[in-house]
Amino acid sequence: MLPATHRRWVLAARPEGAVRESDFRLEEAPVPSPGPGEFRIRTLYLSVAPVMRRYMLDGAGIEKPLELGEVMRGRGVGEVVVSNHPKFQVGDIVHGKLGWQEYSVSDGSPYYMMYKVEQRLVPVSTAIGVLGVTGFTSYLGLVDVGAAKAGETVLVSGAAGGVGSNVGWIARNLGCRVVGLAGTDEKCELLTAELGYHAAINYRTDNVPAKIAEHCPQGIDVFFDNVGGEILDHALAALRRYGRVVCCGRISEYLKDESQTYRLRNWHMIGKSRGRMEGFFIYDLEAHFARAERQMAEWLTAGKMRYREDVLEGIEEMPRALIRLYEGKNVGKQIVKVAERSTSG
Amino acid sequence: MLPATHRRWVLAARPEGAVRESDFRLEEAPVPSPGPGEFRIRTLYLSVAPVMRRYMLDGAGIEKPLELGEVMRGRGVGEVVVSNHPKFQVGDIVHGKLGWQEYSVSDGSPYYMMYKVEQRLVPVSTAIGVLGVTGFTSYLGLVDVGAAKAGETVLVSGAAGGVGSNVGWIARNLGCRVVGLAGTDEKCELLTAELGYHAAINYRTDNVPAKIAEHCPQGIDVFFDNVGGEILDHALAALRRYGRVVCCGRISEYLKDESQTYRLRNWHMIGKSRGRMEGFFIYDLEAHFARAERQMAEWLTAGKMRYREDVLEGIEEMPRALIRLYEGKNVGKQIVKVAERSTSG
Repeated sequence: MLPATHRRWVLAARPEGAVRESDFRLEEAPVPSPGPGEFRIRTLYLSVAPVMRRYMLDGAGIEKPLELGEVMRGRGVGEVVVSNHPKFQVGDIVHGKLGWQEYSVSDGSPYYMMYKVEQRLVPVSTAIGVLGVTGFTSYLGLVDVGAAKAGETVLVSGAAGGVGSNVGWIARNLGCRVVGLAGTDEKCELLTAELGYHAAINYRTDNVPAKIAEHCPQGIDVFFDNVGGEILDHALAALRRYGRVVCCGRISEYLKDESQTYRLRNWHMIGKSRGRMEGFFIYDLEAHFARAERQMAEWLTAGKMRYREDVLEGIEEMPRALIRLYEGKNVGKQIVKVAERSTSG
Repeated sequence: MLPATHRRWVLAARPEGAVRESDFRLEEAPVPSPGPGEFRIRTLYLSVAPVMRRYMLDGAGIEKPLELGEVMRGRGVGEVVVSNHPKFQVGDIVHGKLGWQEYSVSDGSPYYMMYKVEQRLVPVSTAIGVLGVTGFTSYLGLVDVGAAKAGETVLVSGAAGGVGSNVGWIARNLGCRVVGLAGTDEKCELLTAELGYHAAINYRTDNVPAKIAEHCPQGIDVFFDNVGGEILDHALAALRRYGRVVCCGRISEYLKDESQTYRLRNWHMIGKSRGRMEGFFIYDLEAHFARAERQMAEWLTAGKMRYREDVLEGIEEMPRALIRLYEGKNVGKQIVKVAERSTSG
């Protein structure tokens, strides 16, 4: 029985410095109704990502900035509960831009970046994690952008985070040696015990250059960087000839204003090592999503890959879930469970 | 008539800070004799390049460091005057590692990076310039590494230098808008008057960010960097989405010790702009030299490209020629004329 109203988070204030819970407001609103060619989605899980602070500020140069009072933007996985759209059927599980709300309506146009979940082997929450855009970022960032090959050494920063927590298994399955950086001993333990990493470095307590030298004795072929700043400098110092730096994220910098930007010492290593440092936008690689999904689903089924979710329960947790990211508290992909999947489909 | 002795420059001291004339010693030595499978080359022109200071110090990570007393390493163009080698005939014009000397002997093995000059249209001095490894660096750096395309905006640092002085015409012929940076008004004038550049910026006297904004109103698609340091920072700040930085040289940094390294502010633009920053070793692109030579020889013959040499006369000028590079005094490719081409071949 569909309720008349649902809950949704709207932008209450633009963040000044760190994102705070008071930047959001939880509202009660009528459940949106799909018009012709549209369908209604019941949200099951919502995702949070570091880029969200920039959505709140300036649209991240990708989309228009959110207006105050507008529903917070974000991806989620949900089930289609009403449909006037020929390609989406009631019962379909989809992932796309649902927003921070219990129900949403979409016309399936490119804006919504909506994909159907085809696999039936692993839980649907993976569609905003290892078998969603986060996992595709891990896989295609390492394989297509970083061009990692068997026998190479891969270093990953933010290795226990959403993207990083998949890179260990992917690199290992490719035949690489893979070393992860994380900020707590608990996370470091997880990296080697569960996430496929051969070795882990605690960047808060270890001597990072010494540990890189110990665990990457030949140097680094691919640095998969989710952090930026000083860790990037340490990795560049150890970059091998023809090494690649995959610029996936810069979480060390997102909360800084421009005057505080970390000033990089070892930029000259790119030229000196005949190396490459490269950014990417995951949706530019959309044509390769199916390949990434197929390969990782195969590895998951074969027990050659595991994933880790950090799940909060209830839509009321959304702001806290996002803030946990910036505080480095999440272990694995941070998601929020909003509702149970209905038995009726 | 072959003289019994010839002159050669040997390494007398390793540079401390800037390279000085006293780091070299001019010697008189017997003219070397080719053994079986070897040939003797009479040097016509010698080249100098910024990397030479590193040859004097540590071999630049490419070759073994020079020993004190060893003949200074460097490329030149010369004529084969005696040959016991089946592939090199008396009268052939070759370019390769001749060293800073009037006569040399080679066995044509890969160490010498020896190529025959096939073209007969332009002077043979071009074989250490626009139609040699310098010019191949300009062409392949822009086309293959930078992937410059018609309609794009190219910014070049060290634009009046050996490599940079070819990039203007190459970029223009590709259909790009091309803007050069140089350190004197005289060089800036040359860039637009002779070297194919649409606009020039004097990095010592102009407000560089304002001038980049003026001359590259859409931002920069390719930054061809011969300089590094602060200019790289300014270019990164204006990098367009999917922009590329070609890390060709870092002359701003070669004379600094590690503690003085410029600390880069805008490294995050690589990730943010979905960009790429890439180094290369020109001999890795050896398979493409013939393509670069053919295309540029065609442009030169058609009057669609010009080159500029900065010629000193006499082998005794070698140290001064090298020092001029670091002082930014050369305009165009710095070379030294050692001997006239013999009429007899």
